[in-house]
Amino acid sequence: MTAADGPSTATESGPPPVVGVIMGSRSDWETMEGAVELLKEFGVAHECRVVSAHRTPNWMVEYASTAAERGLKVIIAAAGGAAHLPGMVASLTTLPVLGVPVKSRVLNGVDSLLSIVQMPAGVPVGTLAIGAAGAKNAALLAVRILANDNGELRTQLEAFQDKQTETVLKDSWL
Amino acid sequence: MTAADGPSTATESGPPPVVGVIMGSRSDWETMEGAVELLKEFGVAHECRVVSAHRTPNWMVEYASTAAERGLKVIIAAAGGAAHLPGMVASLTTLPVLGVPVKSRVLNGVDSLLSIVQMPAGVPVGTLAIGAAGAKNAALLAVRILANDNGELRTQLEAFQDKQTETVLKDSWL
Amino acid sequence: MTAADGPSTATESGPPPVVGVIMGSRSDWETMEGAVELLKEFGVAHECRVVSAHRTPNWMVEYASTAAERGLKVIIAAAGGAAHLPGMVASLTTLPVLGVPVKSRVLNGVDSLLSIVQMPAGVPVGTLAIGAAGAKNAALLAVRILANDNGELRTQLEAFQDKQTETVLKDSWL
Amino acid sequence: MTAADGPSTATESGPPPVVGVIMGSRSDWETMEGAVELLKEFGVAHECRVVSAHRTPNWMVEYASTAAERGLKVIIAAAGGAAHLPGMVASLTTLPVLGVPVKSRVLNGVDSLLSIVQMPAGVPVGTLAIGAAGAKNAALLAVRILANDNGELRTQLEAFQDKQTETVLKDSWL
Amino acid sequence: MTAADGPSTATESGPPPVVGVIMGSRSDWETMEGAVELLKEFGVAHECRVVSAHRTPNWMVEYASTAAERGLKVIIAAAGGAAHLPGMVASLTTLPVLGVPVKSRVLNGVDSLLSIVQMPAGVPVGTLAIGAAGAKNAALLAVRILANDNGELRTQLEAFQDKQTETVLKDSWL
Amino acid sequence: MTAADGPSTATESGPPPVVGVIMGSRSDWETMEGAVELLKEFGVAHECRVVSAHRTPNWMVEYASTAAERGLKVIIAAAGGAAHLPGMVASLTTLPVLGVPVKSRVLNGVDSLLSIVQMPAGVPVGTLAIGAAGAKNAALLAVRILANDNGELRTQLEAFQDKQTETVLKDSWL
Amino acid sequence: MTAADGPSTATESGPPPVVGVIMGSRSDWETMEGAVELLKEFGVAHECRVVSAHRTPNWMVEYASTAAERGLKVIIAAAGGAAHLPGMVASLTTLPVLGVPVKSRVLNGVDSLLSIVQMPAGVPVGTLAIGAAGAKNAALLAVRILANDNGELRTQLEAFQDKQTETVLKDSWL
Amino acid sequence: MTAADGPSTATESGPPPVVGVIMGSRSDWETMEGAVELLKEFGVAHECRVVSAHRTPNWMVEYASTAAERGLKVIIAAAGGAAHLPGMVASLTTLPVLGVPVKSRVLNGVDSLLSIVQMPAGVPVGTLAIGAAGAKNAALLAVRILANDNGELRTQLEAFQDKQTETVLKDSWL
Repeated sequence: MTAADGPSTATESGPPPVVGVIMGSRSDWETMEGAVELLKEFGVAHECRVVSAHRTPNWMVEYASTAAERGLKVIIAAAGGAAHLPGMVASLTTLPVLGVPVKSRVLNGVDSLLSIVQMPAGVPVGTLAIGAAGAKNAALLAVRILANDNGELRTQLEAFQDKQTETVLKDSWL
Repeated sequence: MTAADGPSTATESGPPPVVGVIMGSRSDWETMEGAVELLKEFGVAHECRVVSAHRTPNWMVEYASTAAERGLKVIIAAAGGAAHLPGMVASLTTLPVLGVPVKSRVLNGVDSLLSIVQMPAGVPVGTLAIGAAGAKNAALLAVRILANDNGELRTQLEAFQDKQTETVLKDSWL
Repeated sequence: MTAADGPSTATESGPPPVVGVIMGSRSDWETMEGAVELLKEFGVAHECRVVSAHRTPNWMVEYASTAAERGLKVIIAAAGGAAHLPGMVASLTTLPVLGVPVKSRVLNGVDSLLSIVQMPAGVPVGTLAIGAAGAKNAALLAVRILANDNGELRTQLEAFQDKQTETVLKDSWL
Repeated sequence: MTAADGPSTATESGPPPVVGVIMGSRSDWETMEGAVELLKEFGVAHECRVVSAHRTPNWMVEYASTAAERGLKVIIAAAGGAAHLPGMVASLTTLPVLGVPVKSRVLNGVDSLLSIVQMPAGVPVGTLAIGAAGAKNAALLAVRILANDNGELRTQLEAFQDKQTETVLKDSWL
Repeated sequence: MTAADGPSTATESGPPPVVGVIMGSRSDWETMEGAVELLKEFGVAHECRVVSAHRTPNWMVEYASTAAERGLKVIIAAAGGAAHLPGMVASLTTLPVLGVPVKSRVLNGVDSLLSIVQMPAGVPVGTLAIGAAGAKNAALLAVRILANDNGELRTQLEAFQDKQTETVLKDSWL
Repeated sequence: MTAADGPSTATESGPPPVVGVIMGSRSDWETMEGAVELLKEFGVAHECRVVSAHRTPNWMVEYASTAAERGLKVIIAAAGGAAHLPGMVASLTTLPVLGVPVKSRVLNGVDSLLSIVQMPAGVPVGTLAIGAAGAKNAALLAVRILANDNGELRTQLEAFQDKQTETVLKDSWL
Repeated sequence: MTAADGPSTATESGPPPVVGVIMGSRSDWETMEGAVELLKEFGVAHECRVVSAHRTPNWMVEYASTAAERGLKVIIAAAGGAAHLPGMVASLTTLPVLGVPVKSRVLNGVDSLLSIVQMPAGVPVGTLAIGAAGAKNAALLAVRILANDNGELRTQLEAFQDKQTETVLKDSWL
Repeated sequence: MTAADGPSTATESGPPPVVGVIMGSRSDWETMEGAVELLKEFGVAHECRVVSAHRTPNWMVEYASTAAERGLKVIIAAAGGAAHLPGMVASLTTLPVLGVPVKSRVLNGVDSLLSIVQMPAGVPVGTLAIGAAGAKNAALLAVRILANDNGELRTQLEAFQDKQTETVLKDSWL
């Protein structure tokens, strides 16, 4: 791996990303797409990369170790099966790391969930639900975190939540 | 419930709390003690209350609904069994909510974990490990979140993590 | 939410509902349809609403808190995943609450089941089987409850059960 | 089994029982004790018997078949392991049957829970949590059911729930 | 149920059945078909009935109680979900009872398996694998049992097993 | 292994054993003791040996292959963890084989149960409950099998079952 | 079984096999195909046979007992359900045995995994993931083992791993 | 971390280690002690270190990356909970890596097992049983691997296995 391939090369112009969305495999994109859509909906600058704990361990170390200095404020990491990416990244940064267990083929993501959530004391990963619901919620939790010092995001979140409520209420008769 | 009993009555002097640590039952304190110790170690102002989703639902609504305006920035919610507290609180605030599954008597916390982590898209709870390890990590994740706009906390976190590493390294021969 | 949207606006004429059938999402209708058909078969007046613990928490509080005074005698609540609706409703009323775990996409409803059945002492939810069988049985259990002071319903139940028996007996050779 | 041993011989004077509390084995008493205490606290007349689906199948049939005519309005049935008692009783009566999964020695009651809750459509068992919490909640759910035509019980239930709330609120600081 | 519908009316001429194959629902036939084919292959006289623990409890009692006197030597009972048939039948006879857990829709037969195998001491059910493999093996185990006093069956079993071995050996290269 | 150590050397005088009770390890004796007591109670001649699938594979082959010719009519095989003994023995004999899953240290016998019960079509093992209850039931199922051509045993079984019933009935009030 | 059918008859010319790939059923080939492809890719001589613990127990004994003397250095054994093949083979050889749990029809391979991995102390099976991923990794682990005294294989492995890394890195932007 | 603390500093004189035994925490020693005793019994030179994936990620990278050049031939890695050590080490070396799932406090090692065994295709970990049995078997599997080019070890292994057999056989009567 050379620097040219490294995470410092941004593909999107505009403001530098504050959320890094990483996943262990391209096949996880189907799960994570909803997370990225939500970040866009909230106007949160982000980057989106495949970073494999098992196939690119050294780059994972570099990505996680330099994430804070590159301006990221939250890392969303998705992985399936023996899902080591979120926990390993959390051990290499002091940023908040949110883990998304990808639904695995044989065990429905129970392996992914336990591999992500059962971290030992000292290295936290905020874990979301298995699959697409968890991916969307990882984005929403990232926005909630960023909203702590961004009043506009808070207002957007309140509007988002109000809209959710209204959508149910206006069509609640069966 | 009157306002006098409400969450606005602080028990500790000093700066207003930025982290709310709530749990469904006093018996969860054994699990959550480590979280509070870590918040103290990092000098993070916090409050600590029993808020039961099932026995004090109205107060839970009040607590969660007013948390942001009272200055909280993160809520840590612990519960066991059919653990509804973290998810319900998350539905009533836009603050980041971190869930700690308490080890339950009969199912070892599997019920607690699934009740907390399997939230539907729209209402995120960042879930930590079952039991005391998860409690400590909830505190550390809260600190990581707060460190996003608090350089001093970030420095403390880096020192904390370095110390963890050194503790292992200096005594790694068996 | 305004009163106009509230649960006091009945959509069906006829006798006031005595069973409230609520579910966390419109997508749960497929599961719950069989419950409503059985209530109709037994001529039990009922209402059927989407009430989401996570997306409409305040309305859920209103719905549950006013259920008894509006004349309901049993509430059937269905939800999937981190299924908080039945337990939260049970904490806000003294009516009998029956919970139906909806089969969830990734964990087949094991999460739904544990989130509903593992309630702490003090707040009961009578839980039925995962999915459509549980939905039908929730309706039948509601009828059994109502039959306690309604001899006609008891007779109907006995006929229902006799018919079940006959259906098997008359065609039991393979 | 002779009639003298049968369920028609009441051991307690006073009003005839309206709740039957049955369990598969004397060893289940430890679990069910809390249910009986709550029934006493609410002044609900009840009877309490060992009825084993596997060791006394004929008596189980008699007990369940005659329960309604003897004046029972709710049956609470507890069993562990391959827990067949609640479901079999439900198939032999039209009374509401509430099932309590007893924590089993090797599988912590997961077997008991699934054996009770996963009933086929047509024969409902309202299932409570595994173990002592479920036993207490079975009693409370029975009281909620009986309160449907007993205003005094409803008032008692409201007081019970208010007291639960107050107990948490008055001692909620940690 | 009248005697005319009862199990004493044989549908097949020929020798009286020695194996009773019963199942809780006609839909279990798909699973059990392989069992019946094997019994035919071994020339074992059998009968095949739907007997539902929950929908025809009284007939189940009659079927099981009279099985021995009618000449049955083994009962194979299949059921799914809260599968009470095998255990209840075993409690009402002293014949060997073999249980086949039918693959259930939501839990893949884990509920069926635990409901059948986790019988308390005193009432044995010899449980086979979930689904069609278990059905076939129930038939083979019945034949093994009958072969104890039927040398011809033993010889057939030995031939069956030899053929199984040969089938693998003659085509073992991949 | 020499013939002298082999299974043909009986340790007990009296009639030749018709039930072989084997277990993978001496530590399984605690579980199996109840099986042997019941066989004694019924006066069934038996032998009791440690036969380890993994530590004495060749002897296991000899034991199983010669069991029928030595006069055994039923084999009860107990094992824990990756419990291969019952299934392997069943593949090497045409006698009925009953499997007892021993409660394992870390997984409570779930591994033992699945390793024993999930046999492929063609090689049946009649599996009993995990642990001591399963051990006793294996003995009772063996007796039920032997009773097929032994009227005295049948009578004993009926008395045994009657006594079970009486024991519950005479002391059923709580 | 005669010697002519035995494992000494090689179907492929060329160097004698050093890896034996065996599986309990022809239907496991779909799972194991990827293992064989990888062995071919690394140029490792191998043989591939159906060896069934339950249908060909005697041949299994012969295969395993003679594997070392025939020049094999690693055995890869795949099986599903009550998967006894890997453990039994490991008990009959001192070669390293790698186990692949085949995804089973009803339990997704959880039964296969536990039956293979939970071996008692004394008889090791190196277990890989359930299904096709585990099959490929069994081949790779075999190559890693063989590379210990084969520098060329080590070089190939390093190239294999580098290529894996490059494949991810060159296409990591989403 | 400086080189002085690094893995190149051997604590034991004698031949350079060929097996590296590493574990995520000193508390894992209780589990792993049996592995080290067996390596000593077979006279296999080894080193034994705490290497934490989460608390010493950089050292883990160094340890794994340099293992082969330092002469190691097998790495045994033990970890509990979200057990990332074995898989991460396997991604950073081409040596065979054997994983031991440590029994975790709340989930009995099910989390450890799935986190270790469910590796994606490309990075193999040979996984042993949960806990002490797995630890011993990891050592035995390492010896089996080393015996491939060490005839003396093979002889020792055969003697070890013969002794296991004899121990059972000479005391097999119960």
